[in-house]
Amino acid sequence: MLGQEAAALLLKLREKKPLVHNITNVVVTNFTANGLLALGVSPVMAYAPEEVADMAKIAGALVLNMGTLTRETVEAMLIAGKSANKHGVPVVFDPVGAGATPFRTEMARRIVNELDIAIIRGNAAEIANVIGESWEIKGVDAGEKGGDTEELARKATKALGTVVAITGKTDVVAGPDKLYMIRNGDEMLTRVTGTGCLLTSILGAYAAVEQDFVFAAAAGLASYGVAAELARQIVSAPGSYQIALLDALYNLEEAQIIEMADITEK
Amino acid sequence: MLGQEAAALLLKLREKKPLVHNITNVVVTNFTANGLLALGVSPVMAYAPEEVADMAKIAGALVLNMGTLTRETVEAMLIAGKSANKHGVPVVFDPVGAGATPFRTEMARRIVNELDIAIIRGNAAEIANVIGESWEIKGVDAGEKGGDTEELARKATKALGTVVAITGKTDVVAGPDKLYMIRNGDEMLTRVTGTGCLLTSILGAYAAVEQDFVFAAAAGLASYGVAAELARQIVSAPGSYQIALLDALYNLEEAQIIEMADITEK
Amino acid sequence: MLGQEAAALLLKLREKKPLVHNITNVVVTNFTANGLLALGVSPVMAYAPEEVADMAKIAGALVLNMGTLTRETVEAMLIAGKSANKHGVPVVFDPVGAGATPFRTEMARRIVNELDIAIIRGNAAEIANVIGESWEIKGVDAGEKGGDTEELARKATKALGTVVAITGKTDVVAGPDKLYMIRNGDEMLTRVTGTGCLLTSILGAYAAVEQDFVFAAAAGLASYGVAAELARQIVSAPGSYQIALLDALYNLEEAQIIEMADITEK
Repeated sequence: MLGQEAAALLLKLREKKPLVHNITNVVVTNFTANGLLALGVSPVMAYAPEEVADMAKIAGALVLNMGTLTRETVEAMLIAGKSANKHGVPVVFDPVGAGATPFRTEMARRIVNELDIAIIRGNAAEIANVIGESWEIKGVDAGEKGGDTEELARKATKALGTVVAITGKTDVVAGPDKLYMIRNGDEMLTRVTGTGCLLTSILGAYAAVEQDFVFAAAAGLASYGVAAELARQIVSAPGSYQIALLDALYNLEEAQIIEMADITEK
Repeated sequence: MLGQEAAALLLKLREKKPLVHNITNVVVTNFTANGLLALGVSPVMAYAPEEVADMAKIAGALVLNMGTLTRETVEAMLIAGKSANKHGVPVVFDPVGAGATPFRTEMARRIVNELDIAIIRGNAAEIANVIGESWEIKGVDAGEKGGDTEELARKATKALGTVVAITGKTDVVAGPDKLYMIRNGDEMLTRVTGTGCLLTSILGAYAAVEQDFVFAAAAGLASYGVAAELARQIVSAPGSYQIALLDALYNLEEAQIIEMADITEK
Repeated sequence: MLGQEAAALLLKLREKKPLVHNITNVVVTNFTANGLLALGVSPVMAYAPEEVADMAKIAGALVLNMGTLTRETVEAMLIAGKSANKHGVPVVFDPVGAGATPFRTEMARRIVNELDIAIIRGNAAEIANVIGESWEIKGVDAGEKGGDTEELARKATKALGTVVAITGKTDVVAGPDKLYMIRNGDEMLTRVTGTGCLLTSILGAYAAVEQDFVFAAAAGLASYGVAAELARQIVSAPGSYQIALLDALYNLEEAQIIEMADITEK
């Protein structure tokens, strides 16, 4: 049932081909743009403070990613985000490395405080740090010692008033009155840089075509996870996997999502 | 005949291996550098205002691409461009997304006004917006509703006093007294980010070895289009296609251009 | 013997999985992160002056690469470098294009003067220019007319008080009392952008797990070179090669290094 709805949402996304405005980090820009194009979405990257408000307001979604943040890019994010908020464009936020340095934590909190975020997507350590909970972090990766991600997601959605998507072995999406667990994806995703960042941008695309952001996030996570599994059926090393994942997003079919998506509501 | 001349130009390019100085956007830098290297060109990326004049003057061509422009990068482009102009180094310009926001349009016009451009390469919407004509634009892509690109190219070359290359299903290159139509390439190019930006940088390489910029642009477009067709013979999804295109540029042979290039003079 | 020690070091590296903090150029960030991940290292890219000191001090190594330097990034490099120096974190430096413009040369010298560098890695032209020797340079590539790289390495290690790794057909690593020659690698590396930059970041990872920086550099160079040779056994064009190299780094086995590494001490 949920798989069928997720599959239907991918069709809608490919039909509407929303414009997704990304303000993202310099490591993943190319991969993000290619992943969105492969899936059937129209990406645009625009960072100048002079133009981000204009770009955000014509987009279907705005995605903010602080992977290689500077004070200047955060200012641009805030300008873009306020424009998106004003024009009803959903804002999706990836607090990359929140907790790794005090500056990142501070900037992440500034973004969630000053903007109305539709979906926040991160690993457990990042989400925990945004809401002031402790969680081990190593660079931009979550440490192995953590806690209960389901509880964390419930806490975070309450604290932030936004849909929270926590990715890990099992993904959790929590909204004000719904929680989904998604068991898709592949371990090889952790050996390719930017797979989390691309996922966040894909959630932006889903938010552009589905106003129920909790389900939009769950559907996006499951569909991406299915593509990740399909790519792994073909290749087994990270260089090839990066390419196979893009191909899998392009070739992803409704029937595959229906068959393979593992979404449960709790 | 034209195919033979285009093929000869590729040989010349590989023999001279010109240094192409790119000031380009953060989405496509890696792909652009790899595409130039694959073809046999020597790329350099340098952006600091303190060094761009020095780098541009020793280059065979300077390529300016405003895909993720900021006020600072535009300043660097102007410094580099003036140095190139002073030292007789051809400047090739890609007005990515001109028309998408007022800031982009303004910066694009500033660049064409302040610099002596050898070749400008864009889609129809971008070229139209640079010269103040209306054309639908979506993000950085041209909309489907447009007009006559041949007429637009003739107008633009007159208005700007530069060679104009408009890419689309059929590519048009217009100069003061010549116009070429090129029918090469593959639809899959639209599913990989940076294929247009790489093309512009390749036109820079061609301009570095051929002073007839109208033909240089036509030859570059046709050769790139042939490589794009050859890549498509091998793969059919965008992740693999990105890689196959680089391989095809590396393996591209004179005989393939002679056989497959579709250039007509009008 | 040396091959065996190099192989042992790769095992240690994969076991410790050091965090490598990179301040690198916009052309190669994605490829660098993917190469480090493929090898089994944990990369982080962080550039903001507000956070680089915090990130550098928790890293196993700091890698500075000035491929697309600006005055701002050099300031961030100095802040990060001083923090690394203070906390005993080894700093590895890649003076990309030193000598290509006066600004690059000046910035490279500033970095080696103000910081305590563990390993500097460049081509002969770059290293020569950092220590004020003349050597032909073309863009960011060393020219063909050079001199004796072994002599240059000895001079540079004395002048700079750091381990010097000069890469070319034969690689040379020189320290205060040891010199290694490494004959691994493949010519196809020169047709893919960022292969030198990735190598420098990999030397950072080796320096994070081996305090004998001369041997750490030699082992890193040889292991990377072996992976490069293995990749070439599979593919023969640069697009595919980029991917095959990442796969080879992931699949690289102790036995392959023992068999293929060509390190000699002089």
